Amino acid sequence: MSIVNFADKFSMFSDHWSPKVIAEMNDYQFKVVKIKGEFVWHQHEETDEVFIVIEGRMHIEFEDRTLTLETGEMYVVPKGVRHKPYAEQECSVLLVEPRGVVNTGEVEGDLTAENDVWI
Amino acid sequence: MSIVNFADKFSMFSDHWSPKVIAEMNDYQFKVVKIKGEFVWHQHEETDEVFIVIEGRMHIEFEDRTLTLETGEMYVVPKGVRHKPYAEQECSVLLVEPRGVVNTGEVEGDLTAENDVWI
Repeated sequence: MSIVNFADKFSMFSDHWSPKVIAEMNDYQFKVVKIKGEFVWHQHEETDEVFIVIEGRMHIEFEDRTLTLETGEMYVVPKGVRHKPYAEQECSVLLVEPRGVVNTGEVEGDLTAENDVWI
Repeated sequence: MSIVNFADKFSMFSDHWSPKVIAEMNDYQFKVVKIKGEFVWHQHEETDEVFIVIEGRMHIEFEDRTLTLETGEMYVVPKGVRHKPYAEQECSVLLVEPRGVVNTGEVEGDLTAENDVWI
């Protein structure tokens, strides 16, 4: 593989809520995604999920609280925990999760993105 | 867990080549490390290893080439591949690798750091 530059990757697309794979480590994938507005409530029954904010501000709503992540911050959503990401303004996010994880978890719908799309 | 702020974590230590765990995702760990000068040649026989430069510039020397990573860039060193990281100036790096990986891989020595130290 070659060096991955996050800014370069984010400059290559403009759609929201559609993660694109930029690298693999063992059976894990690193994905870039731009988010804006509200996602759907969902959970991933088999895995934790890492959010790293590369640029912007996002929120993760849980059943009992809401977290706010700024540029340069990360959070690990534990497996099986229902959550709903959202962002008032466009936010650039790096996700880390096992290969094969679907963005909407157990909840298929309009925002379910094609899996394993590389950029 | 709580939100992890990379800048906060890097402000909490000053030693070099001694990775500190800041988060876990399944059986993987995210570690912050400051590097400066030359590391040792080593490889990790069982796993790929992710380098993400949070601030600064680092190099990874391989047997056939040398890569330079700048702020906002990442690289995945494939398992089993000998490499030697180095940096002329202090560089702040985020590592991602399975729990239990020793920094010097198969080569124990002066730079072998204690494993699983959290910050």
